[in-house]
Amino acid sequence: MSLMKLTQKDLLGIKELTVDEIQLILDTAESFIEVSTREIKKVPTLRGKTVINLFFEASTRTRTSFEIAGKRLSADTINISSSTSSVVKGETLIDTARNLEAMNPDVIVLRHSTPGAPHMLARLVQQSIINAGDGAHEHPTQALLDMMTVRIKKGRIAGLKVAIIGDITHSRVARSNIYGFQKMGAKVVVAGPATMMPRGIEQMGVEAFLHVEDAIKDADVVMMLRVQMERQQQNIFPSLREYSAYFGLNRKNLALANKDALVMHPGPMNRGVEISPDIADGTNSVILAQVTYGVAVRMAILYLLTGGQS
Amino acid sequence: MSLMKLTQKDLLGIKELTVDEIQLILDTAESFIEVSTREIKKVPTLRGKTVINLFFEASTRTRTSFEIAGKRLSADTINISSSTSSVVKGETLIDTARNLEAMNPDVIVLRHSTPGAPHMLARLVQQSIINAGDGAHEHPTQALLDMMTVRIKKGRIAGLKVAIIGDITHSRVARSNIYGFQKMGAKVVVAGPATMMPRGIEQMGVEAFLHVEDAIKDADVVMMLRVQMERQQQNIFPSLREYSAYFGLNRKNLALANKDALVMHPGPMNRGVEISPDIADGTNSVILAQVTYGVAVRMAILYLLTGGQS
Amino acid sequence: MSLMKLTQKDLLGIKELTVDEIQLILDTAESFIEVSTREIKKVPTLRGKTVINLFFEASTRTRTSFEIAGKRLSADTINISSSTSSVVKGETLIDTARNLEAMNPDVIVLRHSTPGAPHMLARLVQQSIINAGDGAHEHPTQALLDMMTVRIKKGRIAGLKVAIIGDITHSRVARSNIYGFQKMGAKVVVAGPATMMPRGIEQMGVEAFLHVEDAIKDADVVMMLRVQMERQQQNIFPSLREYSAYFGLNRKNLALANKDALVMHPGPMNRGVEISPDIADGTNSVILAQVTYGVAVRMAILYLLTGGQS
Repeated sequence: MSLMKLTQKDLLGIKELTVDEIQLILDTAESFIEVSTREIKKVPTLRGKTVINLFFEASTRTRTSFEIAGKRLSADTINISSSTSSVVKGETLIDTARNLEAMNPDVIVLRHSTPGAPHMLARLVQQSIINAGDGAHEHPTQALLDMMTVRIKKGRIAGLKVAIIGDITHSRVARSNIYGFQKMGAKVVVAGPATMMPRGIEQMGVEAFLHVEDAIKDADVVMMLRVQMERQQQNIFPSLREYSAYFGLNRKNLALANKDALVMHPGPMNRGVEISPDIADGTNSVILAQVTYGVAVRMAILYLLTGGQS
Repeated sequence: MSLMKLTQKDLLGIKELTVDEIQLILDTAESFIEVSTREIKKVPTLRGKTVINLFFEASTRTRTSFEIAGKRLSADTINISSSTSSVVKGETLIDTARNLEAMNPDVIVLRHSTPGAPHMLARLVQQSIINAGDGAHEHPTQALLDMMTVRIKKGRIAGLKVAIIGDITHSRVARSNIYGFQKMGAKVVVAGPATMMPRGIEQMGVEAFLHVEDAIKDADVVMMLRVQMERQQQNIFPSLREYSAYFGLNRKNLALANKDALVMHPGPMNRGVEISPDIADGTNSVILAQVTYGVAVRMAILYLLTGGQS
Repeated sequence: MSLMKLTQKDLLGIKELTVDEIQLILDTAESFIEVSTREIKKVPTLRGKTVINLFFEASTRTRTSFEIAGKRLSADTINISSSTSSVVKGETLIDTARNLEAMNPDVIVLRHSTPGAPHMLARLVQQSIINAGDGAHEHPTQALLDMMTVRIKKGRIAGLKVAIIGDITHSRVARSNIYGFQKMGAKVVVAGPATMMPRGIEQMGVEAFLHVEDAIKDADVVMMLRVQMERQQQNIFPSLREYSAYFGLNRKNLALANKDALVMHPGPMNRGVEISPDIADGTNSVILAQVTYGVAVRMAILYLLTGGQS
């Protein structure tokens, strides 16, 4: 007898989810894939529901993915981005959220640079909060779509070896995926420059390497993280050329992974930096499948949080 | 026999409305409150109507409120903000409006820094213009939602004492509320720094004070205006600390009002400046109710201007 | 027996269209004019289709026109503008497009400063690409609405003399209209400053003049191009005053055209520069009709590209 609903009103992080809840989300998401392939890509499930995308950081794919997910469920979607919002007038995030709450939306999707911002809002407002990325903390819908991609492409998650490569310290994608893949029974290893490897990372249960080759060896999944160009000024790595040479994924080091290993990237990619173009577009790459499944995962979450099952 | 429709095609200011028209809008708005509390928050009333939000000043709450109001009535809503518009190409407001008119919208909601801008457009185009704030002139939907809040929370408007505190000179909220509450039979008093008090304000029929205590005494409604931080450079008040001490609402001066006085603020609030946090969140505060009723008021106006009654 | 569908999945330029295809688009557009004049301005034709407006240059009228066209056909419309997109994160246009493709939209409307950008995308992605302006190359929907305006106002295109005046070198509007009007049997002449007249323009089959009077003489259509103010720094013309005096349309030089000549402008207008206000608003002007027909043309294109006929 499988789980039928989420126990919390919000989706804040993978850390807060049980294995059963992750499975419920992935199962529901798989059933939604088909909607986006129909002639008429729309179901009336969330008609009359209001979904607010409240983005304090620039984003194309995540905001668009949520907006498309909402519209394909027939929800009314409202976009608010920081550049055009009252934030310029000095209002606190709390007051912004309480004001939105007073307009009776059903879901607020929040991206914010402060870790924990969605958790704070979730305690303050009645509506469902979905964390669409909070600083370097979590990005749960990204991890869910990554797990979904692996489950579909590999048929399972348990027992696989997942290598996450790059700036582990500053990556919400890494953190959410470490939680998620471990919960689902995979072995997670990480690799990256010493300056980008958090102290005590082993306490999260992962094995950490300073050479990508050690992490990639025999991996079933190789997940490359985006190099955040804006961090270069901070001198935590010497040059893009050096980064690419030592930490980029290319034909040579990918050969160390299992032959049918999946190559993943959360996007946007820096081609030629953390991933070579031939690998990004190669037969192992499931990068675009991630995007496709992202819409389905977000449809599932919107559906489950608005009480779809009831 | 009550009024059944508005006599003008536009909503430009409270000054232009009759008492019957204000009552019609408030009555209609009250009937729309319930829509936003339904499981399916949507009625088909404005299906196939096009509402354009044309905002030349940054706004979260007003634009979002109009957009939600439009969508809950099933209208198609289009947002245009100055940062992404042809305004950067030097087109006149008149030509922008005429061009939008040629696309056959039903309503254009305009926010503009120039007083009278919506009035000019209303004469030029066939469609209904709603003034969502024109410089320091009027903000009629704000005053209507304020009157609605008082009418619901107090059961009446006539005979109440309404104190409006802050930068009266530069506030479109103050101006619209002075017109509105006086028309509905309330007594309006104002208080603020001498540099923020327009000469001849008494000719609008209000009593003006330089000490907030004099205005708040025995008030039924205390409406605080937002301090516009950007005006500080103009040296019209010495410091935020001093402003807060002399003109901010706090537990001590609120005690001078009637015990069950309503505390109102149009938002966004500067907590600790014009209003102390405990008062903003206290039992007298109806600040979030204002936001909720704002959606209903805007639904009512969109409905009435598009010929709902006919 | 007339043509029933477009042969390509995309609308990239007028150059790529046959006469039959142009006629099909204009016929279809004429049948859509009526939708925007109904009480309920909406048909269910594109319900469940997703249209993405991907704009890398500021635009009000074109983006709004496409958005209204999509909504009146019941499509879900998504806006992405460069200022809020992943472009700031350094993603390539190709990756942006492939990612959008993976979300299964039906149509991507692209405006981009690089000539040929939509053509490149069209080869890469399965979905229909509509060119909403690519650098100084083409702006096919503008030319189609211009041809539609002439066909409706004049009853025909073949045999007319069309004069296009202004910065021919940098104008995608000029280029698309030269292709379009010539294909439909009109004679096209151009005029503009020598610095704005491309070498070898005669090879496009047009006659080029350096004096507007020579071009306007006996014209049935006078199409003024927008002066791009930002080009002034490049010193390709000496002053706005001089430009207006030598190349602006006014009562005096318009008198050289046929008495019932149509005055057109793609907008946004610089009143008093390339066109005098009395002419912009005069009886010969069909500038606002262009905007109205623009919505209908875009509805037609969205309809035809999404397989409306099938």
